[in-house]
Amino acid sequence: MERVRSIEVAARVGQRVRVQGWLHAVRRHREFSFVVVRDGWGAVQAIATDLSALDGVQLESVVELEGAVRDEPQLELHDVAIRVVSPVTRPTPVVLGKKALTAPLASLLEHAVTANRHPTRRAVFRIGAAAMRGFRAALDRDGFVEIQSPKLVELATEGGAGVFAVDYFGRPAFLAQSPQLFKQIMVGVFERVYEVGPVFRAEPHDTARHINQYTSLDVELGFIDSHLDVMAQLTGVLRAMFAEIAASCADELRLLGAALPAVPAVVPQLHFTEAQALVAGALGEHERDQPDLSPEGERWLGRWASEQHGSELLFVVGYPMSKRPFYTHPEPGRPGSSRSFDLLFRGTELVTGGQRLHRHADYLAALAARGMSPAPLAGYLDAFESGMPPHGGFAIGLERLLMQLLGLPNIRLAALFPRDLTRLSP
Amino acid sequence: MERVRSIEVAARVGQRVRVQGWLHAVRRHREFSFVVVRDGWGAVQAIATDLSALDGVQLESVVELEGAVRDEPQLELHDVAIRVVSPVTRPTPVVLGKKALTAPLASLLEHAVTANRHPTRRAVFRIGAAAMRGFRAALDRDGFVEIQSPKLVELATEGGAGVFAVDYFGRPAFLAQSPQLFKQIMVGVFERVYEVGPVFRAEPHDTARHINQYTSLDVELGFIDSHLDVMAQLTGVLRAMFAEIAASCADELRLLGAALPAVPAVVPQLHFTEAQALVAGALGEHERDQPDLSPEGERWLGRWASEQHGSELLFVVGYPMSKRPFYTHPEPGRPGSSRSFDLLFRGTELVTGGQRLHRHADYLAALAARGMSPAPLAGYLDAFESGMPPHGGFAIGLERLLMQLLGLPNIRLAALFPRDLTRLSP
Repeated sequence: MERVRSIEVAARVGQRVRVQGWLHAVRRHREFSFVVVRDGWGAVQAIATDLSALDGVQLESVVELEGAVRDEPQLELHDVAIRVVSPVTRPTPVVLGKKALTAPLASLLEHAVTANRHPTRRAVFRIGAAAMRGFRAALDRDGFVEIQSPKLVELATEGGAGVFAVDYFGRPAFLAQSPQLFKQIMVGVFERVYEVGPVFRAEPHDTARHINQYTSLDVELGFIDSHLDVMAQLTGVLRAMFAEIAASCADELRLLGAALPAVPAVVPQLHFTEAQALVAGALGEHERDQPDLSPEGERWLGRWASEQHGSELLFVVGYPMSKRPFYTHPEPGRPGSSRSFDLLFRGTELVTGGQRLHRHADYLAALAARGMSPAPLAGYLDAFESGMPPHGGFAIGLERLLMQLLGLPNIRLAALFPRDLTRLSP
Repeated sequence: MERVRSIEVAARVGQRVRVQGWLHAVRRHREFSFVVVRDGWGAVQAIATDLSALDGVQLESVVELEGAVRDEPQLELHDVAIRVVSPVTRPTPVVLGKKALTAPLASLLEHAVTANRHPTRRAVFRIGAAAMRGFRAALDRDGFVEIQSPKLVELATEGGAGVFAVDYFGRPAFLAQSPQLFKQIMVGVFERVYEVGPVFRAEPHDTARHINQYTSLDVELGFIDSHLDVMAQLTGVLRAMFAEIAASCADELRLLGAALPAVPAVVPQLHFTEAQALVAGALGEHERDQPDLSPEGERWLGRWASEQHGSELLFVVGYPMSKRPFYTHPEPGRPGSSRSFDLLFRGTELVTGGQRLHRHADYLAALAARGMSPAPLAGYLDAFESGMPPHGGFAIGLERLLMQLLGLPNIRLAALFPRDLTRLSP
């Protein structure tokens, strides 16, 4: 008899079926017992009178049930035969058979190998896969080409944040902090490119918002007029991502009690100076001291956008040049202001992007103004000596998106096997 | 006037259009000149009588043409106005305006930033993107979940091949040689998973077939009967990949003079001992000396499969256990033989896969037999103490696939910015 998946059982009422999966829960009663078997898609409940096959084995054993499908009073297997495929002989390190996963964070991370089996954990990563699917589909539709860039590089490009050093056949190398330079170069090849891949940040921060490897959804496009074209592209991509999650993960959203934001036709936007003034008015003049918004300021703006515009998304544009990397395009006629943006989602920065410099001379000037040498960037600058159109792009952090979207208390819960200051395994 | 892409020009005959792109070629004649502009999708030819706008600028300058579309005697723009968007003032380091890219390999790699703009180079990477698209679509359809695994790990897992060492906040770490352990663990979560991502091999080989970072298309699936189920899954995936390339890259294949293989309903297969006997009969008894096939032996088998079975694909199954990693499942009843396979494509190994061990006790025994300590693998082995079904999988090297499919003389030409023994940039 061919195996059916849990999600196919409802279509087999009145037939005998064979299901395989993990022994998720056993509830013993006087006359009979409930046996719940979980597979990769969902779970099936069976009524069993003889549990002798399960003697001496623990939950999470891999089992096979054969039984008759009934849907009265609920969808269940009856007259079941149970066979153990792979017995488990010890209790699992975290309890998986309960509706909620109640183990503390440290235990979830320590035992991620099994904790990720819990339905609420699976839901997070199914939603992540849907987000990537929606991202790629939207860009494929718009003529973007997917690329794969090197993760081993000769120099740190994003400044500020630390880099991981690698011994490359006796030469010093670094793990790429972003595909920034490569995706820009590739605008010269395909005009429109994207990449989904790991990026590495050696930032020694132990917070709920930092991990040291994350998944970056990177986009870059040429022949733009300004950062506004980049923001329009981003808005369309996000709409497609949320639409794909809605279409394929309704059950997962319900399980996690999460709701998708509506993406307005035009996402509201504030200039940085305007945003800072609003925040200073609400939270105090000290909010004006920095060339960036504080986390409190961003949260306040999230509430403001929600109340004033009914939007969970808010663009802040025109960040000070001093706060942005060397490749940032300035706003002509507005000294010190850049053609960059952050997209705040529920009061936290989700995406950073903007227009980049595209003339070789502008790069040399920008590097000189920051006291940076152009020599280590020679290969990169080559692209700008060979003709580059006005271009820009953005990067979405997948784990940050999942954390904000699903209300996870810690970004580590948005990665299967997170890497942080102290964690290199599992 | 809105910009149109080169591929949209044919639909605008009789209209005036605006195109933007790179100055690909200029052929000056007495009365008029041909100006070819390349954009991200193709190229457009224009007839110009006044080239004064191009005075002092070189090929690869970013330009805009406005002109009337005619299709007699061929599709061209007439009455054009030329505007330079980003001037280039030096000749490009490799000649891009000719049909063939004739620069030597070292020059193509050194100047990859611009060389990748050539139509024959773009074709390679468009085909690569189509291959990834076909891969994901086939697996999404079959209920697989895309995952992202850590690239920073505590230990080397694939044995043999070298690993790159990373300084992880003062602790030793390595770059992952494959997502093998993580994809197996994730069978315990989703049953069926795949990952597309970089893998890192510190093999100090300077050959036409080795690069030190490549893109691995990894698949793992549970509840199989044997490696034959894995091979059937792989066959379907490859068929979908080639179908997507055929559907979206006909022009690119033509440009490169490449033909897609037919994927037979059942790919022919040979047992390793049978394959080795055939090769020994043809090439000499020394071919029996190793627990693996020699490159010459693989090439001979490629020709054999083509002549005997009309197939460019050939499975070799049952490799000796001694040649396979510790997680390999043995063939019951055939001592020393494994449930593993290689897929040869045109006489070169393209894919490796097989069934894996799934019982915790079997892992402990396999490690002990190889004199390996289970301690560093504790996190990984946790999955097998928590219930794992029979499972297996495979990995396709994207660059290897492109090299074989397109007849590239060196695998470096299948990566945008290859990393090898001496090359860390561009």
